[in-house]
Amino acid sequence: MGVQSVIFFSLTLLFCLKAEASHCSTHGREQHAGLRLVKNISELPQDNYGSPGLSHITIAGSFLHGIKEVELWLQTLAPGWRTPINRHSCEEVFVVLKGSGTLYLAPNSHLEYPGQPQEFPIFTNCTFHAPVNEAHQVWNTNQDEDLHFLVIISRPPIKAFIYDDWFMPHTAANLKFPIFWDEQCFQTPAKDEL
Amino acid sequence: MGVQSVIFFSLTLLFCLKAEASHCSTHGREQHAGLRLVKNISELPQDNYGSPGLSHITIAGSFLHGIKEVELWLQTLAPGWRTPINRHSCEEVFVVLKGSGTLYLAPNSHLEYPGQPQEFPIFTNCTFHAPVNEAHQVWNTNQDEDLHFLVIISRPPIKAFIYDDWFMPHTAANLKFPIFWDEQCFQTPAKDEL
Repeated sequence: MGVQSVIFFSLTLLFCLKAEASHCSTHGREQHAGLRLVKNISELPQDNYGSPGLSHITIAGSFLHGIKEVELWLQTLAPGWRTPINRHSCEEVFVVLKGSGTLYLAPNSHLEYPGQPQEFPIFTNCTFHAPVNEAHQVWNTNQDEDLHFLVIISRPPIKAFIYDDWFMPHTAANLKFPIFWDEQCFQTPAKDEL
Repeated sequence: MGVQSVIFFSLTLLFCLKAEASHCSTHGREQHAGLRLVKNISELPQDNYGSPGLSHITIAGSFLHGIKEVELWLQTLAPGWRTPINRHSCEEVFVVLKGSGTLYLAPNSHLEYPGQPQEFPIFTNCTFHAPVNEAHQVWNTNQDEDLHFLVIISRPPIKAFIYDDWFMPHTAANLKFPIFWDEQCFQTPAKDEL
């Protein structure tokens, strides 16, 4: 390989809607299930979780695959669609595979509300992260094409605070746990009858 | 977006050899340096660290970017090249972007040595993980094309035990810390003169 060269990666994904509870992890036992260790991403469950402009695939997950310390998602936003304004105490790293849009980030999360966010253009082959506990939003502001990106989080499962707008008080933000794509595999702890 | 559709992702990467110490993080201060929050992966330092068949880019790193809980690498192995046999106590998730090869995994790491590994074919658009403390190796066994993959680890910086072969005792494995691509930004703690 040369020192300076252009390398083209193509990741081809066949989305199929097969979000069945049987895909949920049984406490990491899947790790040793032989052939299932290597998974074809094209065959993983994909869903929009009630948001027609979203596609979400959990490539490596806590509830789904028994991964404990990291989680990896593949998400697509149709033109004009956006993530909720949210913040969380875990780290989150993004890689834009294709498309462009805008990252909104409110670094003053220590005040009573997020406040007017800064805007950062995002583009194919860029990476960025959402600093811990700073409210942020990814918006596909490109009207012409989908925005495809990978998301890596630490300390799964994610517990996100969701805001209606940038001036909603932190105390009024809605804790979303489990997050939409974790709901199916989330098991509420057994009640202690005593 | 349709329920069943084929989506093509392309991640174009311009590799340029610019591994300068100035890229090292100064304790996460970079997080708030405005425009640098969004990085073009094409402009990140790339190196082979003395292994002509390797290309490594730290997309999001502990020493490099002040990320504390996850790390993301982009690696390429030329035909016939392989990673060292290694194990570690952090989690590691792989996504193959392009190419094919073989994952070797020795699940019996609780014995005195890794032992004969199992072999798993890996391919474009697959994902797998290396279970904690199980010795593993990724080998580009495809003689015709490079193997491009993303690596996500938890609890950076990585502390890996490296084996010469599958029958080397665990007690003889070599602890590689900092790992090759962390060496430039690794700062040894100041000596306590007292």
